[in-house]
Amino acid sequence: MAVGDIKTPHLPPVSGIRLSSVDAGIRYAGREDLVLIELSEGSSVAGCFTRNLYKAAPVIVSQKHLASAHTRYLLINSGNANACTGLQGMDDAYNSCKQVAELANVPIESVLPFSTGVIGMPMNMNAVEKGVPRAFENLSEENWESVAKAIMTTDTFAKMVTREIEIDGVKVRINGIAKGAGMIRPDMATMLAYVFTDAYVQKETLQNICSLATDKSFNRVTVDGDTSTNDSIILAATGKAEMPLIDSVESSQGQLLAKSVIDVFKELAQLLVRDGEGATKFVTIVVDNGADTDDCLKVAYSIAHSPLVKTAMFASDPNWGRLVAAIGRSGVEQLDVSNVRVWLDDLLIVEDAGVASGYREELGQQVFDQAEFTIRIDLGMGNCSETIWTCDLSHEYVSINADYRS
Amino acid sequence: MAVGDIKTPHLPPVSGIRLSSVDAGIRYAGREDLVLIELSEGSSVAGCFTRNLYKAAPVIVSQKHLASAHTRYLLINSGNANACTGLQGMDDAYNSCKQVAELANVPIESVLPFSTGVIGMPMNMNAVEKGVPRAFENLSEENWESVAKAIMTTDTFAKMVTREIEIDGVKVRINGIAKGAGMIRPDMATMLAYVFTDAYVQKETLQNICSLATDKSFNRVTVDGDTSTNDSIILAATGKAEMPLIDSVESSQGQLLAKSVIDVFKELAQLLVRDGEGATKFVTIVVDNGADTDDCLKVAYSIAHSPLVKTAMFASDPNWGRLVAAIGRSGVEQLDVSNVRVWLDDLLIVEDAGVASGYREELGQQVFDQAEFTIRIDLGMGNCSETIWTCDLSHEYVSINADYRS
Repeated sequence: MAVGDIKTPHLPPVSGIRLSSVDAGIRYAGREDLVLIELSEGSSVAGCFTRNLYKAAPVIVSQKHLASAHTRYLLINSGNANACTGLQGMDDAYNSCKQVAELANVPIESVLPFSTGVIGMPMNMNAVEKGVPRAFENLSEENWESVAKAIMTTDTFAKMVTREIEIDGVKVRINGIAKGAGMIRPDMATMLAYVFTDAYVQKETLQNICSLATDKSFNRVTVDGDTSTNDSIILAATGKAEMPLIDSVESSQGQLLAKSVIDVFKELAQLLVRDGEGATKFVTIVVDNGADTDDCLKVAYSIAHSPLVKTAMFASDPNWGRLVAAIGRSGVEQLDVSNVRVWLDDLLIVEDAGVASGYREELGQQVFDQAEFTIRIDLGMGNCSETIWTCDLSHEYVSINADYRS
Repeated sequence: MAVGDIKTPHLPPVSGIRLSSVDAGIRYAGREDLVLIELSEGSSVAGCFTRNLYKAAPVIVSQKHLASAHTRYLLINSGNANACTGLQGMDDAYNSCKQVAELANVPIESVLPFSTGVIGMPMNMNAVEKGVPRAFENLSEENWESVAKAIMTTDTFAKMVTREIEIDGVKVRINGIAKGAGMIRPDMATMLAYVFTDAYVQKETLQNICSLATDKSFNRVTVDGDTSTNDSIILAATGKAEMPLIDSVESSQGQLLAKSVIDVFKELAQLLVRDGEGATKFVTIVVDNGADTDDCLKVAYSIAHSPLVKTAMFASDPNWGRLVAAIGRSGVEQLDVSNVRVWLDDLLIVEDAGVASGYREELGQQVFDQAEFTIRIDLGMGNCSETIWTCDLSHEYVSINADYRS
């Protein structure tokens, strides 16, 4: 069950992008699980990848290929992560790139592979091989929704965002799709995100925008604190819009594009949390007036990862004692708890290391009864502010993750 | 439901210790919730306390009193933590000490207060005041079990350990009781532990033994990664045994005593995990051949705190992909995952960054089907080794913590 009123917008074409999805039978029966995305020649491509030391084979190959050639194809499968699969996994990732490259007559390095699903199982390469030619046949500018669905694993809805902006009078389109519902925390997780624009952007500038946007979005959400072996984000720009080259983030054109890309990334990242495994609450955690980003994030994640806070959210129980316990153990040195204030939405609940005068349980209850609310902490130390998004810990989370492989 | 065959031993008297428990009606109806423990004059007392910055009022008072005077009385209540209760909470903690001090004709600093239960609620001082005189009337050398029960909150059984050792031919008794089942992780949590011996020990030496034993026991267990505002451990030595003063941990007598105290602390700490909220598994995590303690503990706690690993334990699912994902994201720099090996009990499951040759799912299943097993990780980096104990994450954990206050 997703939190909030989820809209699944229609995504119009992005000039230079064609997509397709097929039911290759990699693991799931009766659904599509293999995706091919074609980028027109001359596209710029940027990426951000998991920091987990156990990188899945497709992550290793994608990073290598992205650095060494112009990317023309993305091949994505769901159902199997091809992670911790040793040399066989590397061979499988290369071989699927090779098949795409031969059919498209491009260098193997022009193909980036992506996988999501169970860790440690050999890929069903027979299914992939049979699926790839069919994926080529189905390429179209219109398949955004079916592609967004085909990359899902435990997701309950397809995550799709679109924006149209104007840069110097030229209309520019940005489309984004993503998947992920668990094993999600900063530095990314079992999440894949693909964002495409027809803007004309230099590769290094695009990478800067991608890294900046990732840090403000996918690196600021957490469902359960786990980081996966396969997280990948791709930002591609086809350059089909009739506009001058954007070659700097600092230029006014670069700023405009970056702002909208950040916006798309943030909306996708928040959709991941809204679809967090078993989530019934969507909670924004704002930490104001910390000494630095590190301190703010320590406090934010200490709250967001506390099973006691998360079960209290699930119970709609404004148990602020668990909140202050999480703040107090967050590891921020120099924190003077007598200066810390905590709000639930606009309701002051903690000050002077105790409950705020005037606070009444029924007021806190009103906030926690909502499906969406904000917990705000003022550390009273400095000028830094950070925001993250998280969800609660429910019975359904345990059910999903205790049953996933069986 | 506790994990394992829990023994509740009879605790014989420790010369110099008298205890009592009464049903003061602080929060719970129909059970005892107030405990008084008297230490004979000349006792040495040591303590370790929570590192949470939101220290509860009784923790602040206990630390101050322990430093400034000879301790003669411990006053413990369950049901209310007297934490985040501001100046009123401090007054309440002082006033309960004062009442005990006046009735016993000792300085107020000779009394240490302890509280466990809900955070942020004012103490029911009327109940405490009426309970204290009755607690004095009931003091006896024999009340260990009723006291161990009276300090429980969400615990399902009383935690009691006893040992008799010989030091230079003299019989020495060590009795320990503890409470705690949730909000438990290193640096202690909603846990209280009281260990008493009739050994004759200098105060500084006793503090060294207490700190050493805490680090090897209560700071090596985790249920849910939360650290409470009230954690306290007290180690008291009455000196009633007919023996020379132990004034150094390094002496053979100090070593003998320390070894047994560590043993008692460890058994109590493991009982906390066995009674972890909703626990169905008791899991030992051993990290061998790390560069240092910090690296070993990062890996151990990354596994122990991963909701995905914990739900897999609950499901008896040997999902080693989640294990390696937790190792890979643990933040150990310089870790070469190709050198890492992972065992389930004696079964090698991961090597060379993939599944071990010869591993079969049914073998892993046999290990995970047990209520107790060991996950061992060899980091292949150095010579440091650390062991921690944890439990799984079950539906019952969510139920307990989503319903606790209501």
